[in-house]
Amino acid sequence: SRSLHLAVIPGDGIGQEVVAQGLKVLSAVLPQDVKLETKEYDFGARRYHATGETLTDADLDALKQHDAILLGAIGDPSVPSGVLERGFLLKLRFAFDHHVNLRPSKLLPGVATPLAGQPEIDFIVVREGTEGPYTGNGGTIRKGTEHEVATEVSVNTAFGVERVVRDAFARAQARPRKKLALIHKNNVLTFAGHLWTDVFNRVAEEYPEVTTEYMHVDAATIYLVTQPERFDVIVTDNLFGDIITDLAAAVSGGIGVAASGNINPSGAFPSMFEPVHGSAPDIAGQGKADPSATVLSVALLLRHLGYEAEAARIEDAVAADLAERVGKPARSTDEIGDALAVRVAG
Amino acid sequence: SRSLHLAVIPGDGIGQEVVAQGLKVLSAVLPQDVKLETKEYDFGARRYHATGETLTDADLDALKQHDAILLGAIGDPSVPSGVLERGFLLKLRFAFDHHVNLRPSKLLPGVATPLAGQPEIDFIVVREGTEGPYTGNGGTIRKGTEHEVATEVSVNTAFGVERVVRDAFARAQARPRKKLALIHKNNVLTFAGHLWTDVFNRVAEEYPEVTTEYMHVDAATIYLVTQPERFDVIVTDNLFGDIITDLAAAVSGGIGVAASGNINPSGAFPSMFEPVHGSAPDIAGQGKADPSATVLSVALLLRHLGYEAEAARIEDAVAADLAERVGKPARSTDEIGDALAVRVAG
Ligand SMILES: CC(C)[C@H](C(=O)O)[C@@H](O)C(=O)O
Ligand SMILES: CC(C)[C@H](C(=O)O)[C@@H](O)C(=O)O
Repeated sequence: SRSLHLAVIPGDGIGQEVVAQGLKVLSAVLPQDVKLETKEYDFGARRYHATGETLTDADLDALKQHDAILLGAIGDPSVPSGVLERGFLLKLRFAFDHHVNLRPSKLLPGVATPLAGQPEIDFIVVREGTEGPYTGNGGTIRKGTEHEVATEVSVNTAFGVERVVRDAFARAQARPRKKLALIHKNNVLTFAGHLWTDVFNRVAEEYPEVTTEYMHVDAATIYLVTQPERFDVIVTDNLFGDIITDLAAAVSGGIGVAASGNINPSGAFPSMFEPVHGSAPDIAGQGKADPSATVLSVALLLRHLGYEAEAARIEDAVAADLAERVGKPARSTDEIGDALAVRVAG
Repeated sequence: SRSLHLAVIPGDGIGQEVVAQGLKVLSAVLPQDVKLETKEYDFGARRYHATGETLTDADLDALKQHDAILLGAIGDPSVPSGVLERGFLLKLRFAFDHHVNLRPSKLLPGVATPLAGQPEIDFIVVREGTEGPYTGNGGTIRKGTEHEVATEVSVNTAFGVERVVRDAFARAQARPRKKLALIHKNNVLTFAGHLWTDVFNRVAEEYPEVTTEYMHVDAATIYLVTQPERFDVIVTDNLFGDIITDLAAAVSGGIGVAASGNINPSGAFPSMFEPVHGSAPDIAGQGKADPSATVLSVALLLRHLGYEAEAARIEDAVAADLAERVGKPARSTDEIGDALAVRVAG
């Protein structure tokens, strides 16, 4: 019999509530012969306040033992900005070399979008996860004085760019439309921009069936609201990916349904799956949070581990649930989780 | 009698056509006693191909003699990406210390927006223009090899941040709603982020009437499509400003009506005004380009030089013209320019 060893990090705010639903649906969808073993970790604001720790080497060793990680949300207003982001979220992405940050955007039937005319949106963003302006390189001199200088260094390597570009081409090749857009700002950030563009064009030669285009990040934000149907697969840098995936989530149904995977395709370290939304402390503990994004993240997790049929069942269940919501009174986090668990078991 | 010495840079693609309309409307709106003197400069792709030059020291000396600069668009597919951007547009911004990059977004009646429900949009973005990731710092080693490393350095100084933050507070204080949002990514770009946040909070103490908020750039893209009415004045870094102002233009009527000023508030160098759109080579020479963005840039130019009444007359004329377009056949670039000239003279 098979087993799935899952590290569970509920985290802060609504993280607890939504992760509970994710696990509920996961248990319901898994084949009988798969033994699910979960271990919960207490990372986040509480642990930080109690111990000063965000993510220790021992923590990383423990997490390494699992097949995958499911995370709710990390972040709380009581912790200074940057401490948990750099000390936990980014530290984990870097430590486990999560270089493929996968973020699908699909506008499902019945789901509200701020865009007029209900466009057809169905694309995925492959965001680089371990380089660019996220490396923490840089520094400050003369802090707090009128002569302060603060720098941020975006670091980009052929190695790092090529592996994520290859991943994106492979994903584009496997989709019916076979389209891939590179998004950067190569007319201004010419050093990094040329590296990305060169690697992209070189790898493109190996994928003659994939139609490619290049787009500046500023222009991309325009297309995301005026012609989102034009996108199929997008590959982009860490920071641009951060920005455009929030916009992509907004236009394709909101961050209530936006899932993501922080993937190490080699399998050398466990991959981590999380909703794009944060801890939303304003609605935490009220049973108001929509667990759909977490449940869809569980689908990405299952697909990553080879459970394709189960992933698809979850996605279908969420789509059906969203379609049926129209005009109905709002349900609680728990009620939505129950409904999804019933559907996937069905 | 007064005079206005204007440097005119039609540039590439549709630049020629739209600048002609801007000048037409400028002539029509200026008081009788103001002597308008224009001098045209041939910067852009043609000059680059003919001479290899983008913007020489002699050019800068010549431009320096003018009261202001009106630019159409610079950029052509025949020139490698980055050459004209870094060699002309950014070189000019840096040389003339255009640190306030002003970009208003107002959704005018009758103007189409990709957003559902025709929200009320009326805000301005004060984008820093001379620092951040735009400085050209960085470099490449082992170019073209599998070991290539490319860096981009974002440089941020207390001096540079404070002056643009002060400009934004003064603008917020002068507007009815008196709201100012700082947009950054201070949870990841902690060095630059802390500098921006510290300076912002310090200057805020001098403006007790201004309501402030901080927002991450990724979250800002969500609010720009779900709640654009929440914004009044935004102050942000060079790159974030580049990205969100294209999105802002898209939601508030498109880049056909988005104006901008590259302003040196001290007056030490002439300021430069330009439409946000580029050279649009695909429609160049066909009389299809909407000159409204250029005409609105002329309004910003006039306001900067103290011609407030004339600036307002142009803005009213463009608003009236746009409102009357609904359901009418499309007019040519020239026809729109003529109509606006008649209105402002009226
Ligand atoms: C919280 C933050 C570190 C993170 C990021 O910037 O990557 C978040 O915005 C995301 O998109 O996952
Ligand atoms: C053309 C490019 C250099 C420029 C920028 O990035 O600033 C443009 O996008 C803009 O917004 O004015």
